[in-house]
Amino acid sequence: MKRALGPLERIFPMPCALVAAGPMEDPGICTVAWINVVASTPPTIAIGLREIRNTLRHIENTGSFTVNIPSAEMVDVVDYFGIATGNKDGVNKLEVSGLHVSPASMVAAPLIDECPYNLECVVSQTIEVGAYTILLAEIMESHASESILIDADSDVVSMDALNPLVYIPGAREYRTVGPKVADAYSAGKGLV
Amino acid sequence: MKRALGPLERIFPMPCALVAAGPMEDPGICTVAWINVVASTPPTIAIGLREIRNTLRHIENTGSFTVNIPSAEMVDVVDYFGIATGNKDGVNKLEVSGLHVSPASMVAAPLIDECPYNLECVVSQTIEVGAYTILLAEIMESHASESILIDADSDVVSMDALNPLVYIPGAREYRTVGPKVADAYSAGKGLV
Repeated sequence: MKRALGPLERIFPMPCALVAAGPMEDPGICTVAWINVVASTPPTIAIGLREIRNTLRHIENTGSFTVNIPSAEMVDVVDYFGIATGNKDGVNKLEVSGLHVSPASMVAAPLIDECPYNLECVVSQTIEVGAYTILLAEIMESHASESILIDADSDVVSMDALNPLVYIPGAREYRTVGPKVADAYSAGKGLV
Repeated sequence: MKRALGPLERIFPMPCALVAAGPMEDPGICTVAWINVVASTPPTIAIGLREIRNTLRHIENTGSFTVNIPSAEMVDVVDYFGIATGNKDGVNKLEVSGLHVSPASMVAAPLIDECPYNLECVVSQTIEVGAYTILLAEIMESHASESILIDADSDVVSMDALNPLVYIPGAREYRTVGPKVADAYSAGKGLV
């Protein structure tokens, strides 16, 4: 039996990323679960951000931001950037977090050094939906720690090495990615 | 050391859902990894679909669709609906898959019975980006199998009971969701 739950804003699971924008010395950084790729011509992501997010002000000012995928060991810092919204006087959240940033190569935004995978993005469209701003942004560049690539010549990221977080809405849990179940473009061939 | 990989359309991980639209007897169904919530006022999802997707034609005709979250045991069928694009003469993919559908309660689209979690959605905006159509859609209703709820009165879904798939781009793997790492809105409080 199924039960109707009403119009809940949940799908399972969501990714878990740190979005960074603004000046290197005091950037806006926030934790985002509402993010995904939506097109590949050009490579484009969609992000939903609450209007009150201070990071959104930096994105509006510069037209660019980075997406930084943390590993599961960074969960306390990830949660901190989800809790600590807004621009509190005298609090430099980058310093509090202990994270470090470096300039991006193609956009005016900081890359978070401790995150093993990073995207550089330029906003292409902004759509207002109620109290949220949906950004469509073109991916201009990707960076990966060499230690998470399956081999030195590959662009394929090993999930066991990256060990990313996922976010579970409703239960409000951070989880890891589990074991491999099957290869895509292969498991279903028996039915074709 | 980090390495620049170019503008790859990848974030880690992605969810894995079956999108269904069209008539009950021969619906369009396709597997989608490029989907997430992007707003909650009203509850809104974004999906990126290739223009060639037959399911997109059904969505354009009806203005509505369902999102159906499969469990990991359904991986072969999930992959089938990722591989088998387009409308091949004489092939009823619903029949081939062995899945069953029921009418949605608030939209003109089929719910996939075997998927333990389902959303009913109405398209609110359509945005063309290259060879892709990005749909913004309002979530009108959610359904969950009682067996995946943490208790009878709750709307919270247990990941261990749902056992959803995640999709890993690049490696092209289906994986499960792993163990809980921490509670959100809690793990980072020590830094605030």
